[in-house]
Amino acid sequence: MADAARTPTGVPGLDTMLDGGLITGSIALLQGAPGTGKTTVGMQFLYEGVKQYGEAGLLVTFEQFPHTLYRDALAHGWNLRELEQEGRLRVVFTSPQVFLTSLQSPISPINSAIRDIGVKRAVIDSVTQFQSLSAQPVELRAYYNHLINGLRREGITSLLLSEDSGPDFVRSDRGRVAFVVDTVILLRYVEIDSVMQRAVAVLKTRGSDHDKNIRRFEVKRGGLEVYEPFRNRQGLLSGTPRRTG
Amino acid sequence: MADAARTPTGVPGLDTMLDGGLITGSIALLQGAPGTGKTTVGMQFLYEGVKQYGEAGLLVTFEQFPHTLYRDALAHGWNLRELEQEGRLRVVFTSPQVFLTSLQSPISPINSAIRDIGVKRAVIDSVTQFQSLSAQPVELRAYYNHLINGLRREGITSLLLSEDSGPDFVRSDRGRVAFVVDTVILLRYVEIDSVMQRAVAVLKTRGSDHDKNIRRFEVKRGGLEVYEPFRNRQGLLSGTPRRTG
Amino acid sequence: MADAARTPTGVPGLDTMLDGGLITGSIALLQGAPGTGKTTVGMQFLYEGVKQYGEAGLLVTFEQFPHTLYRDALAHGWNLRELEQEGRLRVVFTSPQVFLTSLQSPISPINSAIRDIGVKRAVIDSVTQFQSLSAQPVELRAYYNHLINGLRREGITSLLLSEDSGPDFVRSDRGRVAFVVDTVILLRYVEIDSVMQRAVAVLKTRGSDHDKNIRRFEVKRGGLEVYEPFRNRQGLLSGTPRRTG
Amino acid sequence: MADAARTPTGVPGLDTMLDGGLITGSIALLQGAPGTGKTTVGMQFLYEGVKQYGEAGLLVTFEQFPHTLYRDALAHGWNLRELEQEGRLRVVFTSPQVFLTSLQSPISPINSAIRDIGVKRAVIDSVTQFQSLSAQPVELRAYYNHLINGLRREGITSLLLSEDSGPDFVRSDRGRVAFVVDTVILLRYVEIDSVMQRAVAVLKTRGSDHDKNIRRFEVKRGGLEVYEPFRNRQGLLSGTPRRTG
Amino acid sequence: MADAARTPTGVPGLDTMLDGGLITGSIALLQGAPGTGKTTVGMQFLYEGVKQYGEAGLLVTFEQFPHTLYRDALAHGWNLRELEQEGRLRVVFTSPQVFLTSLQSPISPINSAIRDIGVKRAVIDSVTQFQSLSAQPVELRAYYNHLINGLRREGITSLLLSEDSGPDFVRSDRGRVAFVVDTVILLRYVEIDSVMQRAVAVLKTRGSDHDKNIRRFEVKRGGLEVYEPFRNRQGLLSGTPRRTG
Amino acid sequence: MADAARTPTGVPGLDTMLDGGLITGSIALLQGAPGTGKTTVGMQFLYEGVKQYGEAGLLVTFEQFPHTLYRDALAHGWNLRELEQEGRLRVVFTSPQVFLTSLQSPISPINSAIRDIGVKRAVIDSVTQFQSLSAQPVELRAYYNHLINGLRREGITSLLLSEDSGPDFVRSDRGRVAFVVDTVILLRYVEIDSVMQRAVAVLKTRGSDHDKNIRRFEVKRGGLEVYEPFRNRQGLLSGTPRRTG
Repeated sequence: MADAARTPTGVPGLDTMLDGGLITGSIALLQGAPGTGKTTVGMQFLYEGVKQYGEAGLLVTFEQFPHTLYRDALAHGWNLRELEQEGRLRVVFTSPQVFLTSLQSPISPINSAIRDIGVKRAVIDSVTQFQSLSAQPVELRAYYNHLINGLRREGITSLLLSEDSGPDFVRSDRGRVAFVVDTVILLRYVEIDSVMQRAVAVLKTRGSDHDKNIRRFEVKRGGLEVYEPFRNRQGLLSGTPRRTG
Repeated sequence: MADAARTPTGVPGLDTMLDGGLITGSIALLQGAPGTGKTTVGMQFLYEGVKQYGEAGLLVTFEQFPHTLYRDALAHGWNLRELEQEGRLRVVFTSPQVFLTSLQSPISPINSAIRDIGVKRAVIDSVTQFQSLSAQPVELRAYYNHLINGLRREGITSLLLSEDSGPDFVRSDRGRVAFVVDTVILLRYVEIDSVMQRAVAVLKTRGSDHDKNIRRFEVKRGGLEVYEPFRNRQGLLSGTPRRTG
Repeated sequence: MADAARTPTGVPGLDTMLDGGLITGSIALLQGAPGTGKTTVGMQFLYEGVKQYGEAGLLVTFEQFPHTLYRDALAHGWNLRELEQEGRLRVVFTSPQVFLTSLQSPISPINSAIRDIGVKRAVIDSVTQFQSLSAQPVELRAYYNHLINGLRREGITSLLLSEDSGPDFVRSDRGRVAFVVDTVILLRYVEIDSVMQRAVAVLKTRGSDHDKNIRRFEVKRGGLEVYEPFRNRQGLLSGTPRRTG
Repeated sequence: MADAARTPTGVPGLDTMLDGGLITGSIALLQGAPGTGKTTVGMQFLYEGVKQYGEAGLLVTFEQFPHTLYRDALAHGWNLRELEQEGRLRVVFTSPQVFLTSLQSPISPINSAIRDIGVKRAVIDSVTQFQSLSAQPVELRAYYNHLINGLRREGITSLLLSEDSGPDFVRSDRGRVAFVVDTVILLRYVEIDSVMQRAVAVLKTRGSDHDKNIRRFEVKRGGLEVYEPFRNRQGLLSGTPRRTG
Repeated sequence: MADAARTPTGVPGLDTMLDGGLITGSIALLQGAPGTGKTTVGMQFLYEGVKQYGEAGLLVTFEQFPHTLYRDALAHGWNLRELEQEGRLRVVFTSPQVFLTSLQSPISPINSAIRDIGVKRAVIDSVTQFQSLSAQPVELRAYYNHLINGLRREGITSLLLSEDSGPDFVRSDRGRVAFVVDTVILLRYVEIDSVMQRAVAVLKTRGSDHDKNIRRFEVKRGGLEVYEPFRNRQGLLSGTPRRTG
Repeated sequence: MADAARTPTGVPGLDTMLDGGLITGSIALLQGAPGTGKTTVGMQFLYEGVKQYGEAGLLVTFEQFPHTLYRDALAHGWNLRELEQEGRLRVVFTSPQVFLTSLQSPISPINSAIRDIGVKRAVIDSVTQFQSLSAQPVELRAYYNHLINGLRREGITSLLLSEDSGPDFVRSDRGRVAFVVDTVILLRYVEIDSVMQRAVAVLKTRGSDHDKNIRRFEVKRGGLEVYEPFRNRQGLLSGTPRRTG
């Protein structure tokens, strides 16, 4: 199951967990509580995509103004504005509705941009905002399918950021997007020895193998650093694990 | 209770757990969180059905485009397209409503196909999409009964895939389909020693015996591999078990 | 409290737990998760009623076609069709509404049948389907009272099967039928040493004594076998007990 | 706080727990899961009231036909019908609405009866049926206040039976009747050493002292027998206690 | 933070916990399950206010008839009726709506009374009844603000009694009154060694210090007696604590 | 990640946890149960802002009258009224709607004030009141974005106070404001050795590092004192931690 082409995320430890990276052209969901580093991973994925792998990127944001993203990226040493000026990145500040419509229309500015700069990687920040499109889980699921099929059609390796609020990673997922994507990555707070640590786990990779360990990580200047697996703990994904042995 | 004819699933470890396979003509529910391997089991059931047992299959999918299914199957070494060209498999991409109606009509394309290629096995991916047909649990249950009675009438051994989101395997089952099927198989994430492992359990087999152990499994190239039962753990099905003794 | 006439269920271990059986003419609720053996107990109650005690039976089913019931019963060695032909059993496939109405009308086919073959035992599979009659707990309760009073009036010892989904046996009981019946019997999955076992407990027997142990049971060819009480476990009815001492 | 007149319940162990009995003229709530013995306590309260203390009683039932009550009482050795014929007990089978209205009207048959036979004790089986009067907690509370004020006005020591379904004795109490009564007594199932035992606790006695122990009890012929307090357990009222020390 | 004027509650142990009493003119919330002693504390606060500190009091009750309050108080040795006749206490039996309106109108009977007898202390039994004024949390919060601002404007040290039903003291607080008051005091049941004990904790005192221990208390003739802090327990406020070390 | 300009909160221990303070111009959320000290931190942030750092402040309050804020601040030794008279602080008592509108209008009194006195710090007490603007989570989120973008545009380092009611800091956050802010700080009650202690944790700091310890704190005259991290406890943020090792 290891011969599919890979798109490294650019987060070294995460790529190791993913057995080399995301399957090229696949769709990954990155779920996490506020502050666990979702947007950082998204920016790192796009920045390293350009720098290390020469792949153009698309960053779709529904809430954050581009200038705050540029500023936050700069704090990590990533000059996104420069990449944009060089035509290797496009940051789009839009609404879920407009983005979905654009994705369906071959002549929309977004689709033009995708083709003009040859987008290979996309980050959607965040798919939780799609919940504004419908209060019906079934309809919401349909919108997620439109989104994912649109990205798949273009062959764009995509990272869908998702806001999340509890130990059960499906419960707050109203449109059950986790069932439709190819990969699910969780970022979590875990209280260990009275310290708020962060944990990363890869749950699902369609058509591929991956590291099943739950690993500690930190957000540093320059992006995520993924460390050793946790040891002697049970219930890590509950957020309040217990020591064992 | 062991003399009913058996339809092996083609997943060796699971067939052992099922005391040889599913009862021929019966309906099984395969429930699992995203990424636990439901669709893989479904494809393996149909592919090995053709290859090992010479039984034609029907794969009904409500969301995934056939070409992504073909691709995912190929990653396991299963060439579904070829089987389809040989008239030994039919992949149908439709809606729950159309599928239910077709099942009732003897002259519908789906029923024609079922009879033309002599379908013996079917996979429905997934029954959770039937929730779009009604918001009323009672109505939804009626639709499930239509589906199951239709499949039973044709004598097709069927695997109903079901999305699931928690430790209580009935709670999120709005139409209570688990009560209507003949067999219930659960695929679960379990956090063991800070590692995300997968567990399989057979809960219910109407008119038959089965292995009551909760077993570890992995998704490998070529399908599911079912391993030894877990040991020294309590609360496995909660997802966050505790070590014992 | 032991002088009321008894109607043995025909499940030997359960009759021991019930101090001889159900009180004749009383109404028992048998609650359980899917696959725990509710319908098996129901069929055993009726089959052994005829065979061992010469009492005619009525099996009311709202979803399962009679022929699948016959087939499942046969797998246990119980030829229900034969009993029906001999006029000692009546299997009725109807709706909750029709059944309730029939029960009130002295000249309805169901009431005629009850009197013609002298029904002494009835199984209703399942009372959960009565939830289709009303979304109001209060109204639903009224329907349950109609049902139970109708059965009581005829002096029929009855087993009401009930679908159930959690550790709290009242929570999912929307019409609170457990408060109206004379006896409550629970069938549960319990995860013990990584094995899915089954547990039976008798909770309530109006006007009678009973075994308070929670016992292990299995569904075998020929019906339920009830074994020794569990030992060294706490929280059995939660489904994920802990070992003690 | 011990000089108020007492009305013994007639359940010896419970009277000890209540420091002699209920305060005369006060209103007690007896809450319990199905089968824990609420109705038995109610009948015992009325029967022993007549026999031991010469006090006439009123039994108001909203669902159970009087003849089933008579039968269940007889199983305990209590001939309620005889008491009724002697004019020392009145069993009323009515609706919550009619009962409330009657209580307000001095010339209603119920009020006449209360005065004719000089009712000193009443049992309402059950106050949960009042939930049919309103879906609004605030309105329901008002109905409970009407009921309780009506009983207080007549100086009748009353036992309100209440259906209950969980460890939190207030959560399912939609009209919060527990806050309005003078005494709260809980009957619970507790799983101890894999045995379903029963526990009784007195939570609240306005203007009086009481035993704070949680005690084991059984329902025997002749009524409740209250035993020693539980020992070495924590979380008894959760239903699944843990052993300590 | 200790120089604000104090109004002792008259419950000695509680005053010690409150570092001398409530801040004069402040608003305290006293939350508790049924039977934990809320009304007793309220009456004690007013009675001792008159007797020990010569401060006139106002008791506003929305459900209990004054004569039952007098009777319950007398059981503690507190003759409230006498205080009322002496013009040192006013007991008002009214509705939340009327009370709120009166509080806003300088010439209302309630405001006249407040000024005529120079009310310095008030008890509102209970603020939970304000929930009848609106189903909207936001509107309910506005009503609470009207109440609290009205009492503050008059400089009346006030105790708001609140019905409560669980371990999370905010969850059932629909209008979130706990955020608006100056002090929060909790009365709880805790099951310790199979005994239902009571615990008192002071959570919040705006502009003041307080005892952070969770203490055992009992309701005795003469009012609350507050004892030593609990020891070797964790999870006391959950109601089912565990023993430690 | 440490070169962004800092705005110290003025709470020494908290500034250490925040690696020097809040990022200048960023928006922080301070979430806590009633009485944990949210408003105290807000006042301390503004008072010390003026006194130690010469930065003018804005305190927006939706419920508390300014005079009670002045009084509570004075109890800590902070004379807010004086600061206001000196033109270094502005206390605004308004509604969420008016505040949002004013923030958008360059000529509104609030915006004039912000510019006249050169506001550098703002406290909004509390953002929970924005819930009155809409019952729709999506709309509420939009209002939060308006608020936050307005404050960001002005370059004001802001502290948004938020009422909170449970262990899961996102669950009761209807508009999911925690995902939009730059920093999240939690104040919590934790029951330790039968004592109600307080804990502070910094969860999220966009573009910056911070102390991950969960620390004990107390509210003293003069503001918050932050102490050592907790030790040997697991599950602190659940409120009912367990001792370890």
